[in-house]
Amino acid sequence: MDNIGVVFLSEVVGTALLVLLGTGVVANVALAKNKGLGGGFLMVTIGWGFAVFVGVIAAYNSGAHLNPAVTLGLVASGATEFGSGVPVNFLSVLTYIAAQFLGAFIGAVFCWLAYRQHFDAEPNPANKLGVFSTGPAIRSYGWNMVTEIIGTFVLVFVVLAFGGGRQGESGGLAALGALPVALLVLVIGTSLGGPTGYAINPARDLGPRIAHFVLPIKGKGSSDWAYSWVPVVGPVIGGVLAGWASLVLLPILT
Amino acid sequence: MDNIGVVFLSEVVGTALLVLLGTGVVANVALAKNKGLGGGFLMVTIGWGFAVFVGVIAAYNSGAHLNPAVTLGLVASGATEFGSGVPVNFLSVLTYIAAQFLGAFIGAVFCWLAYRQHFDAEPNPANKLGVFSTGPAIRSYGWNMVTEIIGTFVLVFVVLAFGGGRQGESGGLAALGALPVALLVLVIGTSLGGPTGYAINPARDLGPRIAHFVLPIKGKGSSDWAYSWVPVVGPVIGGVLAGWASLVLLPILT
Amino acid sequence: MDNIGVVFLSEVVGTALLVLLGTGVVANVALAKNKGLGGGFLMVTIGWGFAVFVGVIAAYNSGAHLNPAVTLGLVASGATEFGSGVPVNFLSVLTYIAAQFLGAFIGAVFCWLAYRQHFDAEPNPANKLGVFSTGPAIRSYGWNMVTEIIGTFVLVFVVLAFGGGRQGESGGLAALGALPVALLVLVIGTSLGGPTGYAINPARDLGPRIAHFVLPIKGKGSSDWAYSWVPVVGPVIGGVLAGWASLVLLPILT
Amino acid sequence: MDNIGVVFLSEVVGTALLVLLGTGVVANVALAKNKGLGGGFLMVTIGWGFAVFVGVIAAYNSGAHLNPAVTLGLVASGATEFGSGVPVNFLSVLTYIAAQFLGAFIGAVFCWLAYRQHFDAEPNPANKLGVFSTGPAIRSYGWNMVTEIIGTFVLVFVVLAFGGGRQGESGGLAALGALPVALLVLVIGTSLGGPTGYAINPARDLGPRIAHFVLPIKGKGSSDWAYSWVPVVGPVIGGVLAGWASLVLLPILT
Repeated sequence: MDNIGVVFLSEVVGTALLVLLGTGVVANVALAKNKGLGGGFLMVTIGWGFAVFVGVIAAYNSGAHLNPAVTLGLVASGATEFGSGVPVNFLSVLTYIAAQFLGAFIGAVFCWLAYRQHFDAEPNPANKLGVFSTGPAIRSYGWNMVTEIIGTFVLVFVVLAFGGGRQGESGGLAALGALPVALLVLVIGTSLGGPTGYAINPARDLGPRIAHFVLPIKGKGSSDWAYSWVPVVGPVIGGVLAGWASLVLLPILT
Repeated sequence: MDNIGVVFLSEVVGTALLVLLGTGVVANVALAKNKGLGGGFLMVTIGWGFAVFVGVIAAYNSGAHLNPAVTLGLVASGATEFGSGVPVNFLSVLTYIAAQFLGAFIGAVFCWLAYRQHFDAEPNPANKLGVFSTGPAIRSYGWNMVTEIIGTFVLVFVVLAFGGGRQGESGGLAALGALPVALLVLVIGTSLGGPTGYAINPARDLGPRIAHFVLPIKGKGSSDWAYSWVPVVGPVIGGVLAGWASLVLLPILT
Repeated sequence: MDNIGVVFLSEVVGTALLVLLGTGVVANVALAKNKGLGGGFLMVTIGWGFAVFVGVIAAYNSGAHLNPAVTLGLVASGATEFGSGVPVNFLSVLTYIAAQFLGAFIGAVFCWLAYRQHFDAEPNPANKLGVFSTGPAIRSYGWNMVTEIIGTFVLVFVVLAFGGGRQGESGGLAALGALPVALLVLVIGTSLGGPTGYAINPARDLGPRIAHFVLPIKGKGSSDWAYSWVPVVGPVIGGVLAGWASLVLLPILT
Repeated sequence: MDNIGVVFLSEVVGTALLVLLGTGVVANVALAKNKGLGGGFLMVTIGWGFAVFVGVIAAYNSGAHLNPAVTLGLVASGATEFGSGVPVNFLSVLTYIAAQFLGAFIGAVFCWLAYRQHFDAEPNPANKLGVFSTGPAIRSYGWNMVTEIIGTFVLVFVVLAFGGGRQGESGGLAALGALPVALLVLVIGTSLGGPTGYAINPARDLGPRIAHFVLPIKGKGSSDWAYSWVPVVGPVIGGVLAGWASLVLLPILT
């Protein structure tokens, strides 16, 4: 398979695993009759953090962006090549992003299958949407955007700072290279996730929202399209700002 | 001792430690008068995750499968040799699986001994069985199976992706090679454990269920044999599917 | 840029990230209508711990002190050079400390922006100040000081014992070098944070307190200047004592 | 300083840090008016786990036993030399154990100082003793002993299996070598800590109990000497059994 095909497949699989495990923890905590019902926000951040860990391990060959904000942040940082050895150009960027959205959609479908009966048993439509996509605690597109920009800036800037992910071909120690980005996402959740539920990733939010829209989920209610652009535009802005900042700062800091 | 004997003993000890610590955390959270009573689902997933960490460290010489779904997934992936250098054949597969069931049984017995008085003090028979074996939050053999298949697929596919476990003969850093699989099991618990309690391992579920059946546990109630095949068949299907998927995908992804 | 400029910028950015994520987790847990509201003290300690992880990764080139108590502890330990290769002298110490205070101030400002609506929605002024700065559970300047001295002593002594932080230029495994100090801060929080909220860092406490004082926070109440010297003086004493203790003990212990 | 002096000092400092941070988390969770009050059993196990992490990092030169059950387990395993290069003999064993008790006593004293006002504010004497020493959930010396034997067996057997601790002289990655034993103690807590509060270390329990007995703690009540032998004898038996088991099993398993 050529390199661009490898990137596509890696990003699909990695993002699907990320979103399956990430939306899954919200389902467990929020949907009726689950064993993890009421498990709390810390459990959600731990679930999303290690969901990233798993996705990054699986998508070794594409450099495991799994997030358009990361891909665009790398572009903004002046990278000429992605971690996968693929040159940065319109086609490769499009491939990354398309694969991320597709993977996120697929992950959400499998989450729905794994929690099928609990979606059926849950009376509150807002809890069902909350499994798939983020929503604001206090709706205000401007301030919600600010929060998403700050959260994504931290994510992309720090990822660019250590340039990391899984390292080496094989083995548990190599896989530990995926741990820092997982802990980074965990702490962004605990610390910047309160107001908007920290999308910090357009694919993670919009892909599952589309799944919510098209899947025949019992009693599902609105997909809240009015808010849907915030967790797309905010993370893109945050990621690009982080890329620009890294151009100036990272040669000095690291 | 010959290699097959080494495999047998390693898998017995590793699985016994895994199941002792895994069933132990459920006992602590669920049985009357324990200091951890009501500790919540996050604590259960942390306990099971690091139970795997410990089991994997101890079973270095067999490659630490500790789970028939992993062994069968490796077979399905076309492996010709297990991590331990033992060739893949009927005898070696049988040895792995028999050792895993025996170890799981032994681990459950020691859990019962460690929590003996709390089993006696607990009035609800369902809580006692819940220490040993998983059960569905909403009973539906088909959907429960789907959940177990998805969870086990993630486990085995990702383990095959990084091929990991403890690395090297000795020392804390080598032992850290067992951390990724522990974090993987932790996140499968937080994220896919809500509907069925994530057996994702036939030995982990059936071995302790047999222990529940044969041990003289005070006021123990049914061992729920009607459900017992789900956490065996589901994980086997998930593991084998993961092995096949890894044949196609892993040469590309990693 | 010359070395002292690198140090300044690294400490500003690292401390800003540390304080943004650290104050952020308190905002999430304590301010009205947040998704993490009531998340508990464990979540706070996890948030602060991995906030340190992120700050340390970003401030690789200055050795990532991010804390005047660490800088002064290094001085007290007889170091002649900071991790960054900058000689220990009045100017370099001043640079470190000024950058740490500035970074902490900036981090607190961004926390306020990220949680802007929740500051507005929160009725209790004490909860607002609690996001920025620590306060005692039982006010007693002497005993509060003792607690801060002990906590900071543990922090600085153990940091000096392993001399660590991120290691190597790039990659996830190198970034894991920042994990021990994160876990150290986490456990100081769980274990010594009960009485005073563990400032253990003059910049982390006073920088955000100044931000609280100058920012136009709605209904903000007092900045509690009467207590403000305790989390400055206590950590300085603790850090210097740790530096002296390391002079005597570390050649023996490690 | 000669080797035996190095061992003594290392074990005193390491065990003091371990016990300060371990008893500290219980104080935070259990004593009136603390910020961590009611933080739950999971927080306690995390605190104790990373308390071990810190103690092991600090006591690099003695091999960081910090626990008579580990020292005696090593003796039972037929070791001829401790990690520190000191030969195994009556004097060296005595040095290790004496240092561990002294360190545990010192750690408990500093915990009392750090939480002084909260000891005064706490009305229930049992909560005060619970900070220092373990006690059974259901008192039965025989079964309590069984639980302590099983927990300590797991601790010592697995430590002997990977032979770990901090590795190398310096740096964050070397310090990560102390992480496996911390995670091991964490999971023993979550999974075997329900019935007795997992002493699994005679020094950790008896040293602080003596501190409880001699310190002028306001309204402190009984030191429960009737139970005090269980968390000493149980762990010694468990550690020695693990040493013997390792003689037989570890050459095969690892």
